[in-house]
Amino acid sequence: MAQPASVATIDRNSGAVPSTGRAARQAIRRREWSGPTSGLAPGYVQGNLAILPGSLASDFMRFCQLNPKPCPLLAVGAPGDWRLPTLGDDLDIRTDLCRYKVFRNGEMVDEPTDITKHWRDDLVIFALGCSFSFEDALMQDGIELRHITNGSTVPMYRTSIETTPAGPFHGPLVVSMRPLTPADAIRAVQITTRFPAVHGAPVHLGMPELIGIKDIMKPDYGDPAQINADEMPVFWACGVTPQSVVATVKPEFCITHYPGCMLVTDRKNSEFAIM
Amino acid sequence: MAQPASVATIDRNSGAVPSTGRAARQAIRRREWSGPTSGLAPGYVQGNLAILPGSLASDFMRFCQLNPKPCPLLAVGAPGDWRLPTLGDDLDIRTDLCRYKVFRNGEMVDEPTDITKHWRDDLVIFALGCSFSFEDALMQDGIELRHITNGSTVPMYRTSIETTPAGPFHGPLVVSMRPLTPADAIRAVQITTRFPAVHGAPVHLGMPELIGIKDIMKPDYGDPAQINADEMPVFWACGVTPQSVVATVKPEFCITHYPGCMLVTDRKNSEFAIM
Repeated sequence: MAQPASVATIDRNSGAVPSTGRAARQAIRRREWSGPTSGLAPGYVQGNLAILPGSLASDFMRFCQLNPKPCPLLAVGAPGDWRLPTLGDDLDIRTDLCRYKVFRNGEMVDEPTDITKHWRDDLVIFALGCSFSFEDALMQDGIELRHITNGSTVPMYRTSIETTPAGPFHGPLVVSMRPLTPADAIRAVQITTRFPAVHGAPVHLGMPELIGIKDIMKPDYGDPAQINADEMPVFWACGVTPQSVVATVKPEFCITHYPGCMLVTDRKNSEFAIM
Repeated sequence: MAQPASVATIDRNSGAVPSTGRAARQAIRRREWSGPTSGLAPGYVQGNLAILPGSLASDFMRFCQLNPKPCPLLAVGAPGDWRLPTLGDDLDIRTDLCRYKVFRNGEMVDEPTDITKHWRDDLVIFALGCSFSFEDALMQDGIELRHITNGSTVPMYRTSIETTPAGPFHGPLVVSMRPLTPADAIRAVQITTRFPAVHGAPVHLGMPELIGIKDIMKPDYGDPAQINADEMPVFWACGVTPQSVVATVKPEFCITHYPGCMLVTDRKNSEFAIM
């Protein structure tokens, strides 16, 4: 698998960070940006990526439509088409992410920076909303997000809440957790309700035991986050849900984004606010 | 003080309950309805009433504007005017409530069913939103409200949160509490956010100790409400706040509605939804 001989990483402090979704994709495509996309093109929607064979596509699409909170569909490609014009005129899914994961029969077989050679005529792209968008809105309102303050990964938990199955796709809802004061929790419900296309309102708050979380300091994914005495855990449906559901199915072939290396689009977060 | 010789009470089960705000006020004015207004004219906004001398009116109005969550102003009368045309063409505040309380220097001196003889040229009417409106929206969404299920009064608490003072008006925020599951609490934030003119979103949830409530089963007003193991207390700013604030000031003269005997208006709850 071709890895670039050298990946020029733009110095994030130099002011040369691409500031639009299009500029970000072009920098990635030209191998001028290789790192995680957090902080890239501020204000632009970033998405989770899943690419599946046509034989699974309609079941997976139905799964997303049945489970819109963990699987908010931003766009679905036509079979074999590597473009997603509603998310970017020039978008080419084969080259526009920093890094991918390629799976065969549930096993990871490659972590390329380009999937041109893996492309097939029956592949269908699924771009799903991600928490970056609503976190941006929360921070703009002055709400502190602990994992961002700490530079850690948001804690995520498999819950006792089952997703609604479709075809072979089924499994538990995975949630991310952000500790907030009650007043900030109420404000966060209001703010994230405005963004149904990027996970929307929390699914739960307080009382983690009610959704099958035994030890809040032992997340299933990500890093633990300190909850202060005046805070409660607030839980949002998480984009790891479809990833874990797809992994369970062990599809014959599948490509996803590499963790932290999201699809950067031309759509602005604010466009996805319903009011 | 003139009490009606006989008050004809409409049988609530006969189907003769006035179904519009106007019909309700007319039935009250004609002494055909003397009971509490809960359940009367479903869908129409009911309000808390405070009538103050002109000398206090501008400070009280400022207090309401500084504290919109506990004191959501529906309408303010002109000095000496007993009408509130924005809430009802034919509304006459002197006759249109079932019962009033009249205070002199903070002491209750009368509980009349008509305040015509108490009227003064300097009196200013304040009509404030009440929780009936948002409770109607919550119940329409299928959310169970414990105090309504139990036929009891919602539990209310003086909190450690201070209102923003204006002139002589100051005092603690009073909140009402409804036990809800986390999922219903999130939904209730969404629904009541749509109604800022009738207390709006909760001010707090979970952790009553953070707002100075020592024993959730010992409310300062109303009846205790059972909180089940899968529920949390959700707190809304309460219209008892301005009543308790006014009582503290012991105004030379003041009239309020009698508990449960609200002002029924021609405005529909749905008109007050901001979206």
